[in-house]
Amino acid sequence: MESAYLSLKAVNPYIRRLSARVSISERSTIIVTMSLSERIRPALEIRAQTLEPSAVLPKDCLLPRNVMGVPRASGLLSDRELELTEKYDATALVNMLAEGVVTSEALLLAFRKRATIAQQCTNCLTELIPQATNDARACDEFLANTGKPMGPLHGLPVSVKEQISIAGRRTNVGFVAMVDNVTSEDAQIVTSLKRLGAVVFARTNQPQSLMQLQTNNNIYGATVNPRNTSLTAGGSTGGEAALMAMHGTPLGIGGDIGGSIRVPAALNGIYGFYPSVGRISGEGALVPLPGNDSIPGTLGPFTRSLRDISLFCTAYSLTNPWLDDPSLLPMPILSPSPALSPTNPLRIGILTTDNVVTPLPPVQCALKQVQARLHHAPNIALVPFQPYKHDYAWTLISANYFEDGGAAIKELCKTGSDPLLPATEWILAQCKQSIDSLSLHTIQARKAARDAYRVAYAKHWNKAAVDVLIAPVTPSTAPRVDSRVPYWGYTAVWNLLQYPAIAFPIGGFKSGRGDLSDYQPRNEKEEGIAREYVAEEAEGMPVGLQIVARRLHESVLVEAARVIEDAMRLEIGCRL
Amino acid sequence: MESAYLSLKAVNPYIRRLSARVSISERSTIIVTMSLSERIRPALEIRAQTLEPSAVLPKDCLLPRNVMGVPRASGLLSDRELELTEKYDATALVNMLAEGVVTSEALLLAFRKRATIAQQCTNCLTELIPQATNDARACDEFLANTGKPMGPLHGLPVSVKEQISIAGRRTNVGFVAMVDNVTSEDAQIVTSLKRLGAVVFARTNQPQSLMQLQTNNNIYGATVNPRNTSLTAGGSTGGEAALMAMHGTPLGIGGDIGGSIRVPAALNGIYGFYPSVGRISGEGALVPLPGNDSIPGTLGPFTRSLRDISLFCTAYSLTNPWLDDPSLLPMPILSPSPALSPTNPLRIGILTTDNVVTPLPPVQCALKQVQARLHHAPNIALVPFQPYKHDYAWTLISANYFEDGGAAIKELCKTGSDPLLPATEWILAQCKQSIDSLSLHTIQARKAARDAYRVAYAKHWNKAAVDVLIAPVTPSTAPRVDSRVPYWGYTAVWNLLQYPAIAFPIGGFKSGRGDLSDYQPRNEKEEGIAREYVAEEAEGMPVGLQIVARRLHESVLVEAARVIEDAMRLEIGCRL
Repeated sequence: MESAYLSLKAVNPYIRRLSARVSISERSTIIVTMSLSERIRPALEIRAQTLEPSAVLPKDCLLPRNVMGVPRASGLLSDRELELTEKYDATALVNMLAEGVVTSEALLLAFRKRATIAQQCTNCLTELIPQATNDARACDEFLANTGKPMGPLHGLPVSVKEQISIAGRRTNVGFVAMVDNVTSEDAQIVTSLKRLGAVVFARTNQPQSLMQLQTNNNIYGATVNPRNTSLTAGGSTGGEAALMAMHGTPLGIGGDIGGSIRVPAALNGIYGFYPSVGRISGEGALVPLPGNDSIPGTLGPFTRSLRDISLFCTAYSLTNPWLDDPSLLPMPILSPSPALSPTNPLRIGILTTDNVVTPLPPVQCALKQVQARLHHAPNIALVPFQPYKHDYAWTLISANYFEDGGAAIKELCKTGSDPLLPATEWILAQCKQSIDSLSLHTIQARKAARDAYRVAYAKHWNKAAVDVLIAPVTPSTAPRVDSRVPYWGYTAVWNLLQYPAIAFPIGGFKSGRGDLSDYQPRNEKEEGIAREYVAEEAEGMPVGLQIVARRLHESVLVEAARVIEDAMRLEIGCRL
Repeated sequence: MESAYLSLKAVNPYIRRLSARVSISERSTIIVTMSLSERIRPALEIRAQTLEPSAVLPKDCLLPRNVMGVPRASGLLSDRELELTEKYDATALVNMLAEGVVTSEALLLAFRKRATIAQQCTNCLTELIPQATNDARACDEFLANTGKPMGPLHGLPVSVKEQISIAGRRTNVGFVAMVDNVTSEDAQIVTSLKRLGAVVFARTNQPQSLMQLQTNNNIYGATVNPRNTSLTAGGSTGGEAALMAMHGTPLGIGGDIGGSIRVPAALNGIYGFYPSVGRISGEGALVPLPGNDSIPGTLGPFTRSLRDISLFCTAYSLTNPWLDDPSLLPMPILSPSPALSPTNPLRIGILTTDNVVTPLPPVQCALKQVQARLHHAPNIALVPFQPYKHDYAWTLISANYFEDGGAAIKELCKTGSDPLLPATEWILAQCKQSIDSLSLHTIQARKAARDAYRVAYAKHWNKAAVDVLIAPVTPSTAPRVDSRVPYWGYTAVWNLLQYPAIAFPIGGFKSGRGDLSDYQPRNEKEEGIAREYVAEEAEGMPVGLQIVARRLHESVLVEAARVIEDAMRLEIGCRL
């Protein structure tokens, strides 16, 4: 055991930074009082108690900077468990489960072990769910007794962001004030997943206020990127993304109000799907201020393949979630419609810059790579796509995020003696600054401006006459954990418009193309991001792009993504 | 000419109450200052100038209380014009137009004449649109040149509520402050109608603030019910409904945020369709406070037959309105879906009371009549349906109507020296009272309560497992013009839930069943409504009911309405 770590240690200069499995949360609790420390202790104890005992790493073992290899190197998983967690996507696993090739209980144990290791490496979990083992056994018994799977997700372990309630368990949403908050009912997404036969087994970390594109809070601390633990996993659904990157879950559910699914997906080399609002029920997904809906967030899946997005959507729609949650459209997410046929050839716009922050070399290279591969595809017409006032879009959406100016979040933090983290302070300040700069001092004026922008963007898109866009998700690869230059522009604009988007992995950034010699920052934002960029740290880190379609055009989006992946001859699964 | 009126006069005791064609607006302007009178004069002059000159009634002619017969009795319309305006629904007319059986220009003239007479009888118009004649000629030329109709509504005259902008014309939304407000672009619904070949020819009256279930403002005054001009036409789209009742338009577009399409439809014996929000574009339909969307209104059609609702929806969806207005669902309004199949037999709930205001005899009789007719239909299962906290629903929706507490409306009225009318004051007071009684003093708390009610109602509906409901629209037949006991409960609950509904005519209330001997008022609201009820005035007045479906289940709604009408052996067209 020790020897595996020693060999990893030898190649990793950051090895001393994360020296033990609770180091990350300890680090963040340094800034708070003892009394806070006492208050969060039960949450940390629940987590510790629910982890898989057979996958606890040796005390004081030293972890490398890149922890991707730790599960394999640890020797704690059997070959079969390594195969089950690494080789298959969710679609393959549900087929194997339905055919009895693997039992749900065995599969769950494999993922519980791997998730426990992922937790120790990246601080991605808030707990494993004890009940899951019973649920998995029930699936196996059902199949044994009836010869039939319980549903289209029979026996599949699924992880969810912590904000998603689980009956009888605590849901704190990253707020110390809510650390004792027991929720009495399952969130609707959990109910649907269970109806489909899935085994909800893990809950994952999120940032204070949920409004950060990184993941850090004063209960569990920061979740880090498994490929370089000095970098962020992204956020707000960073726990899910880090867990999936480490093959600690085959399917995860997160939330996205400004990039919170797509950013961590892109920074971790996996798929993340932000559907339009009205597709997936958010009932029972707790938020700081219920009823604050000028900009609604939505839940969506993380997957290891494009076909898993279809698997999830098709299965979820079978539960008729719109009957219980009437805010949803009463139709399958991917239902085709004559009104929703993509053109032939598929017309794809390429957005290479939003004219606010031009992407840095890793993302520029990815965009060029995609263009080069799609250029000659006979069924694709590539066209440039000009952004339409994306700087204004950020001002608008940030002005609209907090109808109360952030009062509810501040109050929650005050109640919990929960110091506002810098990234929380930043987004609340953005809101105020944006409202002032727009001189839109009523909620209604801000919403009216929002609506006008949506209509103007539709006109702009119609003029370009594209089916979908390919666009950056982030300006570069994963920033440092302590980065102070968040940039939401590439994702939040689509939340403002409610245009669905799939973040998909392009691969690891290749060496020798990372320098900034051609990059001339034109504004403060570009300067800040360029200043933090370290070419060596980008090396090998995942780059993701997103495919974007018109609002509620998910069927077009998924079909276009399929055509794009076919044209790029990408294999199913992640590239790293 | 005069003799016709004399004969009508002989049977009508109310004949002196409305003695000349501008009397109604004059009556309401009595309460305002001369300076107001000067400010509104241009609007009244525009109306007077755009009416059809060949259909102006003789000066000082006396009108009967029931003016339904005036168009025919006036002698101003030819037999052909009477036939064209009375005998056909829009579906029949578009077929005749496409086949060249009638020209658009001739049909337009017939409706212009009849609308002009309707205006003089009920004060339903704000103007006729001069450009319509050119548009009709263009249709005729197109057909003559190409042999093809311009679109599925080729040549059909269509009227719209005044709040719906017309390029280059004034749109005042019933506010004196906006009397000079010229709108530069057509509303999207107008653009769509024109693309379909329709001829938008008339604009109709609405109440101050749009928030009344009657129709009165300080510019044009009150619109009255053509079957009894001492009674209201309902509102807020009362102008449309009175116009259609008098066969002055074959298809009209109104707006509904609390009953504003369904109430005037029911009180005038026609069809009114309130679709779920997200179906018909409201872009360019002006409102007092843009961005005030806790409870959004929507546009919808008035028709003379059920099939005309399908005609409108199918045609409108062909214009792909969702491409220009991304707030809409990108799919045809009536697109069927496996998720939206009604059960067989069709399961219909009957809501006989909301447990707040039990309907008075006219509506009770209509409900009994429907139940008796549907009881034995083999393809229908009738079940009682219990209301779910409809009193609370009214408190919630009224608390949510005005995010700013009505400040924008008050400010507009102040700017225009536009005295707040009692019905405007009433609804603003309801808002304040409801907020206080709920103790929900933030917008977000009110919206959260709204969302929770929606989820609770879905559960309630699912338990009853009905496809649609049949329910009252109003507690009784049309109230007096000066009624002070508005009741929104039967319609507004479905706006709160965004459940689509079709108001349909049951027929005129029959004599001898109108007394209140069995009606024991249980609360203030029932007492007020019972106190105003006059059995003799209800006699012969239209009664409407509504069919209600789950949110966005328009295809189920229209299919159910067809089954219900078939079962009731109703002929197509209005019953009166």
